[in-house]
Amino acid sequence: MVLPTRQNVEKVLEHFNRKDGVIVVKGKELRERDDTDVEVDFRQESSFYYLTGVAEPGFYVVIDVATKRIQLFAPPVNPDDVVWMGYPDSLETLQTKYDVDEALYTTDLDARLKEASAVYTIPHFNLTFKDEAIKSASTEDNDALYAAISEARIVKADWEIEVMRKANKISSDAHVKVMEAAKTGINEAELYAIFLNESNRNGAFFQSYMPIFGAGMNAATLHYNKNNATIENATDMILVDAGCEYNYYASDITRTFPVGGKFTEEAATIYSIVLDMQKACFAELKAGAKWEDIHTVALEVAAEGLIKTGIIVGEKQELLDKDVVAAFFPHGIGHMIGIDVHDVPKYCTSVERIDRPSYRYLRMRRTLAAGNVVTVEPGIYFCEFMIDPVVKAEETKKYINVDILNKYKSVGGVRIEDNLVVTEDGYVNLTTAPKEIAEIEALMAEASSKKRKLE
Amino acid sequence: MVLPTRQNVEKVLEHFNRKDGVIVVKGKELRERDDTDVEVDFRQESSFYYLTGVAEPGFYVVIDVATKRIQLFAPPVNPDDVVWMGYPDSLETLQTKYDVDEALYTTDLDARLKEASAVYTIPHFNLTFKDEAIKSASTEDNDALYAAISEARIVKADWEIEVMRKANKISSDAHVKVMEAAKTGINEAELYAIFLNESNRNGAFFQSYMPIFGAGMNAATLHYNKNNATIENATDMILVDAGCEYNYYASDITRTFPVGGKFTEEAATIYSIVLDMQKACFAELKAGAKWEDIHTVALEVAAEGLIKTGIIVGEKQELLDKDVVAAFFPHGIGHMIGIDVHDVPKYCTSVERIDRPSYRYLRMRRTLAAGNVVTVEPGIYFCEFMIDPVVKAEETKKYINVDILNKYKSVGGVRIEDNLVVTEDGYVNLTTAPKEIAEIEALMAEASSKKRKLE
Repeated sequence: MVLPTRQNVEKVLEHFNRKDGVIVVKGKELRERDDTDVEVDFRQESSFYYLTGVAEPGFYVVIDVATKRIQLFAPPVNPDDVVWMGYPDSLETLQTKYDVDEALYTTDLDARLKEASAVYTIPHFNLTFKDEAIKSASTEDNDALYAAISEARIVKADWEIEVMRKANKISSDAHVKVMEAAKTGINEAELYAIFLNESNRNGAFFQSYMPIFGAGMNAATLHYNKNNATIENATDMILVDAGCEYNYYASDITRTFPVGGKFTEEAATIYSIVLDMQKACFAELKAGAKWEDIHTVALEVAAEGLIKTGIIVGEKQELLDKDVVAAFFPHGIGHMIGIDVHDVPKYCTSVERIDRPSYRYLRMRRTLAAGNVVTVEPGIYFCEFMIDPVVKAEETKKYINVDILNKYKSVGGVRIEDNLVVTEDGYVNLTTAPKEIAEIEALMAEASSKKRKLE
Repeated sequence: MVLPTRQNVEKVLEHFNRKDGVIVVKGKELRERDDTDVEVDFRQESSFYYLTGVAEPGFYVVIDVATKRIQLFAPPVNPDDVVWMGYPDSLETLQTKYDVDEALYTTDLDARLKEASAVYTIPHFNLTFKDEAIKSASTEDNDALYAAISEARIVKADWEIEVMRKANKISSDAHVKVMEAAKTGINEAELYAIFLNESNRNGAFFQSYMPIFGAGMNAATLHYNKNNATIENATDMILVDAGCEYNYYASDITRTFPVGGKFTEEAATIYSIVLDMQKACFAELKAGAKWEDIHTVALEVAAEGLIKTGIIVGEKQELLDKDVVAAFFPHGIGHMIGIDVHDVPKYCTSVERIDRPSYRYLRMRRTLAAGNVVTVEPGIYFCEFMIDPVVKAEETKKYINVDILNKYKSVGGVRIEDNLVVTEDGYVNLTTAPKEIAEIEALMAEASSKKRKLE
């Protein structure tokens, strides 16, 4: 099946307000590990994949702005390589395999570029041309190209959403396998291996990002990635933030559950607040909603929940204004997701940040549009680096009840993260991994009983 | 357990004939995928790992040539990182965790280097220093350093061999799992996923190299790495060249077997020739043996076997002299293996090549020493790019019986590869995956009968 990437090119051109010239994008080369000949698994650069669907090294694409003609440039055939690798696809095959008008060899690239009135490139690719006859576009034009590609990428086509649904299905099933395998005495690395296996055996050989498998207090370290501790206590919560990449589209899912399969009262309380935060955000999610408003909803529900536990003390609005809640929920509510897990890097994520703890780490500040795919990932953490400054500061120490706080500390951290497509009226949740306490406890109890029968 | 890497440093210094100055080696930084913030799995640079055992990013090591003092330089603590990642190890902890004399921060590195009469670096690292007071060593000295590190690395200590034995055990078991899972209708990618799972669940989260899972004629493409074909015929041979890396040491194992579990007569014939080639090489393997002589033994046994089948016709020596056998066995008999799969890159592998087909791809031309670990990996392939030129050339076409050749072509390719430690008197084979035809057929029959019972 030919991937309909011409649609993507046309979408980019709609956003790129230029009349002539050509866009040139360079695909990735095969790379080796350090000074060795050990090839690193090839993963195409994201925008190149978006424009071409080509998952092979050494290609270029040239798009004529006026005619919308797409030319794919393949690396020339190297006779030595043929002996070891077999014949590569012919130009005829490439033209039918990909959604392009013509396939040529990269040896013809410079000649093509010399014909163009302007050559636009993605700025951070730093693509330069030796031939002085090639008219490189201005920085402003190249920035406009990057903005156009980014605007196109963040509104997903239906076929892209179906790929993301599959990525989410594989990852959701993998989360279930991890829950089923969890037991005291297991190592975080063993759970990680189970997640990888579920991904790989379904054809998802890349992970979207370095995953987090953090049990007990490791879950309170937001970017924990050692993933190598043995889990000793049945009541330890384990936070699993992991998602495979399937056919170049990311998934990014977090589930948190007790290793022994049964939530303690404290864990259930914190978990329920986080789940309430997520559901409240879902209720706001639709085209036209402002991302920072959704984040604010999460903060408010967190405030209400934490007040009810007695961990924080005072009026809700005062606790929010003084950024006390941010000590427990210090990160943003989520981000766009697509071919990259933070989609599109250097674009959606390079926002002017609101400089106060409750909003500082919000990765995005956009008004949502139908076709955006976002993560919604509230969390509550008992992280000393976040909470201690609030407890110690003269101005804020009155807001924390340290005795009650200490009672909850062993919960570590809870995050619940799903991937959702924004629609005109609401959203479609792509993530199917269970997250209600009763569901998780039931599936873990069943897995545990099966394990006992096998023993 | 502290890894005894000081032994490695001392071995390097024995080979490095300089009286003063310091050696500085830079460890690897954490890297991101393209222009994204997706971190790529961290794998330390091999020589840095050899000298320090440090598998974390951003370190340097400084070794004083005269005093043998080892100073480890850690990245300074970044308060922002602490919030997200927790506290890194203190200098005191680092000093006890690794086999070094002192731990400092990289902020003190330049001051230390300025004190030195000469600063030696590994040439291809391209390490340069802005401070003019730092006296960079000459190219000749740096080349001598690289040679010293390489000479040290290729003679393995006992503890290194034990790690490689474990890597071989995990990979050997994974090969067995792949054989057990093989059946018609399975995809090469599914077998690859099984291999990865056996590696990962035993803590080997890296593969030593991009593996080959090639069925049928794919096995005749020597560097086949698509690993995505569905295997339709029970008689198809599948060549699996895969090895995990365990605790930074590589394994590199090839097994070839019929997907349906039963060798055809032709497959058994070719397979037996390759196994004979390997056994004949083993018989020559010991300290003092020349690598190209071992390669010659493989060529001779291949010649005898292929003459017996009738595929090639003529006197053995003439067929060898005319490089006819090289059309079926075109690569070298093996290579050193250690922290890198081709150990040490740019050193053992950068040899003056013998410019004729039978020897051109020999990766190494050394006299073996006790403690070397090598692969022995003979193969016979029915690859049109190799064989057709011999069949078509006026001078050599008489050496090939095309009718008999055609009868064997569907065997595709057979390679058998083990990892062996060279000893004074012979060798120790680290690879435990079965390779006798009877063993493979028996284990596949048993797996198949178990699968039937479960259905």
